[in-house]
Amino acid sequence: MRSNTKTTVGSYLVTRLEQMGLGHVFGVPGDYVLGFYDLLEASDIKVIGTCTEIGAGYAADAYARVNGLGAVCVTYCVGGLNAVNAVAGAYAEKSPLVVISGAPGTNERVRSPLLHHRVRTFETQLRIYEQVTAAAVALDDPRTVPMLVDSALDTCVREKRPVYLELPRDLVSAPCAAPGPHRPVQPHSDRASLDEAVAEAVALLSRARRPVILAGVELHRFGLQAPLLRLVERTGYPVAATLLGKSVISERHPRYLGIYEGAMGHERVRRAVENADRVLILGAFMTDINLGIYTARLDPARTIYAHSGTVAIGHHHYDDVFLGHFIARIADARLPRRRTAVPRAAAPLPFRPHSGDHITMRRLFARLDQFLDDDTVVICDIGDSLFGGADLTIHRRTEFLSPAYYASMGFSVPAALGAQIADMRRRPLVIVGDGAFQMTGQELSTITQHRLNPIVLVLNNKGYTTERAIHDGPYNNISGWAYHRWPDILGDGWGCEVRTEDELEDALRKAQAHTSSFSIINVQLDPLDCSPALIRLGRRLARKVK
Amino acid sequence: MRSNTKTTVGSYLVTRLEQMGLGHVFGVPGDYVLGFYDLLEASDIKVIGTCTEIGAGYAADAYARVNGLGAVCVTYCVGGLNAVNAVAGAYAEKSPLVVISGAPGTNERVRSPLLHHRVRTFETQLRIYEQVTAAAVALDDPRTVPMLVDSALDTCVREKRPVYLELPRDLVSAPCAAPGPHRPVQPHSDRASLDEAVAEAVALLSRARRPVILAGVELHRFGLQAPLLRLVERTGYPVAATLLGKSVISERHPRYLGIYEGAMGHERVRRAVENADRVLILGAFMTDINLGIYTARLDPARTIYAHSGTVAIGHHHYDDVFLGHFIARIADARLPRRRTAVPRAAAPLPFRPHSGDHITMRRLFARLDQFLDDDTVVICDIGDSLFGGADLTIHRRTEFLSPAYYASMGFSVPAALGAQIADMRRRPLVIVGDGAFQMTGQELSTITQHRLNPIVLVLNNKGYTTERAIHDGPYNNISGWAYHRWPDILGDGWGCEVRTEDELEDALRKAQAHTSSFSIINVQLDPLDCSPALIRLGRRLARKVK
Repeated sequence: MRSNTKTTVGSYLVTRLEQMGLGHVFGVPGDYVLGFYDLLEASDIKVIGTCTEIGAGYAADAYARVNGLGAVCVTYCVGGLNAVNAVAGAYAEKSPLVVISGAPGTNERVRSPLLHHRVRTFETQLRIYEQVTAAAVALDDPRTVPMLVDSALDTCVREKRPVYLELPRDLVSAPCAAPGPHRPVQPHSDRASLDEAVAEAVALLSRARRPVILAGVELHRFGLQAPLLRLVERTGYPVAATLLGKSVISERHPRYLGIYEGAMGHERVRRAVENADRVLILGAFMTDINLGIYTARLDPARTIYAHSGTVAIGHHHYDDVFLGHFIARIADARLPRRRTAVPRAAAPLPFRPHSGDHITMRRLFARLDQFLDDDTVVICDIGDSLFGGADLTIHRRTEFLSPAYYASMGFSVPAALGAQIADMRRRPLVIVGDGAFQMTGQELSTITQHRLNPIVLVLNNKGYTTERAIHDGPYNNISGWAYHRWPDILGDGWGCEVRTEDELEDALRKAQAHTSSFSIINVQLDPLDCSPALIRLGRRLARKVK
Repeated sequence: MRSNTKTTVGSYLVTRLEQMGLGHVFGVPGDYVLGFYDLLEASDIKVIGTCTEIGAGYAADAYARVNGLGAVCVTYCVGGLNAVNAVAGAYAEKSPLVVISGAPGTNERVRSPLLHHRVRTFETQLRIYEQVTAAAVALDDPRTVPMLVDSALDTCVREKRPVYLELPRDLVSAPCAAPGPHRPVQPHSDRASLDEAVAEAVALLSRARRPVILAGVELHRFGLQAPLLRLVERTGYPVAATLLGKSVISERHPRYLGIYEGAMGHERVRRAVENADRVLILGAFMTDINLGIYTARLDPARTIYAHSGTVAIGHHHYDDVFLGHFIARIADARLPRRRTAVPRAAAPLPFRPHSGDHITMRRLFARLDQFLDDDTVVICDIGDSLFGGADLTIHRRTEFLSPAYYASMGFSVPAALGAQIADMRRRPLVIVGDGAFQMTGQELSTITQHRLNPIVLVLNNKGYTTERAIHDGPYNNISGWAYHRWPDILGDGWGCEVRTEDELEDALRKAQAHTSSFSIINVQLDPLDCSPALIRLGRRLARKVK
């Protein structure tokens, strides 16, 4: 892999990232990383400077979900420690994110001085990142850099988890062996395990009369949408998705059931999945929100559960089985074709605004469902934005982004930045609560700087409505902002405030036509109005708060 | 200490915090911490909800610097991990900050489910906080809670470092022993060490002909301003301060020299300190920025260095000597009175604005120096705001706040929130760069909610000017915002934009008169204009970047 020619440590890393298809890096510069920023500026990788490191982290996470690899590049501690939460979210939800942090030079550390940005020891940040990444390494010896970089980047792509690379500033230009051609990671399965797992699964599925597929987030991450589609079309099995897996198959596909989330979701989907005599669960995390806070009823005796390199059937499991291989082999098997009926929701009537009526959550999402087109990426922040958004019908694949498991508020606006930079053909529709917008909404600045044009709907109910539903108190109330006035701050963008259905109608039309920069719609809602799904969720979570 | 009566785990913690003089807690609610929020609401401690957890962290840090104890209360991971950087800064700069995080209930953790907000294991956040606190404990057993809480809070106050308490939500209402009366931590010295250290120091100081005191941040933290003043007034020694120690003595005191920061500071201060035949360094951190990036020349053979429980003289040191005891004993010793001349800067002429002249950094700070009054708390963000602010003459004690060592951008606006809540008699003057404002400026929302009235000066030069001085590149440019339009977003506050000296004059007058809410002044500066101190610093840091 490595030639005898020489490069520098910094250039080695840049070259590998270019080879792996990284087009952009998100970050905030700082003195310990400026030398590496210069290398990025001189490379094919574009630096997207954000307002905050947490914004860079969310943007890079979303970019990684769309592009297959993302990166955030920050300075030591004051930068890196501000991105920890976004990286933790990428870990929890399996997003292939590379974190690059500058650090004090090895030549400056002699006698352990109190250099600025240092917390306790020079290892503090490395120790912290070990907790939220699949690999965390300090690139402090040019001889081991090629091996460490290659190994960490492979881990990132293979496990779809973040990795952390710490680069002391004096090593950026230190000589090291040049990189050879990049060899992409090949997914691996143990052949014997795979054969046996497939044989057992096929035997069970052959006998099943009402099998159903439950599709999860790993299908997004490993790019297995096409094999899933083939499996669905060859077998005819109805397919439901988890909340994190939403949009892994077009939600207009005739065999698509909807989102399965126990009692939180639609009854027809719950019944279809729970009444199946065999549920083939593919790449789903069995998380609490994904499963409607454990209201899901999935009897292990009736499931085949493939995820993270493992296939579990009943109470035994097979290790070292790559999900993609497993799906392909099941699709190839001559399974009896099933034509189980797919219970469908009544086709919604064309939405007609009721002039003068105050907007409600229910009507808002009904309207938005008809606003989506083939080029819309829906990005939902956590809270009722997500619970309401779960009901939207996504047209194509991979067009719904949300931190549906880790549930970190403030993801959506920076995620719109990352998602649109990763795929300029799509236009993000951001659905964000006021509390979440107040956390990271300033990244509209970065969005403006790069001439992106998301449509941002702020669901303005002056508080943390999800928490109101769970356990209310005065701490759930927040200040009202004139969110639609952000264009006045930024000198670009288009904004308006809406209270009634006809105002919303008008605003959506104008936002759609305003393609030169972002649009922001301040949707005034009743503080106690929430989606039916949230009311159900709130009741369940409330039992656990005390 | 503990009685036989019973209370609950949550109430135990609340009672102790009340007993220790905590009046406010900063945070963002989340479902794992809502039960504890209810206890806070019912207590004498007021909850200040911020826009972000990093904002809560900075606010609580500033509150702790002013009040002697501060606290931030957040939810698990998505909350706690967003505050890590502020807590790291409090660790680095010794601020007594208590971090309280909710967590999944112990009863929910059986079989290790994927509960929302979980990253890797249930211990992830605890492991991370161990890196940035003096004590990090999980309160997961009601029997040990009194001991763990008391021990952690004592550590916080004794070491002036943050501590972390993780509270599983099912334990908030679990019964535990009630707290007895609170016994404040008494600072401790080993008597023999203290005696010997004092004797040696007094002998050296008695022989010194030109002794000088260098006062540092620990004098703020341990509340030793009065003993320092007594020492200065009894001995007549001239006293300089480090950047972090700034304002530990009134900067109008006749024996006050100025800020000592090597070649970065004023030549007259540098010369006075470096030409002294004995430098008594009290409670200073020997950090890079504090010491003008190692341009300071302090020969250990001529210093007596007391800090963090240690007194170092020459190449030996005494442990277990509390700084306060040491200072008091030196002040009591019959040292020969010294009347070394204190070189003073020429008294500035009354500032007269040059009508129509563009504002420069030099003139801006000259004007601000005359704007301060006895009730002003100056809060400088990192960057040229700090380097320029270092030259301001602070009237009273403890009126200058800045992250001068850890150097985390975005500290100042939330710090103004925390500082004014801690002492409503003072009015903060915030000096903040545009880059730093973009990070956390939204906490003006919280400032508005609580009817506080800081004056915020945004030094708008469309980029990271400190970095431009160190190592320029396109990544140092940021979007221009109409910062003065924030009142339009928030529906309160007063703002304006200024370019010339007469506009600045007018704006300062109006801001001073506008006491009902915040004022924000968007100061348009040339992107390449910077303070003389920054030019000197930039040259030095630039050598280390490559």
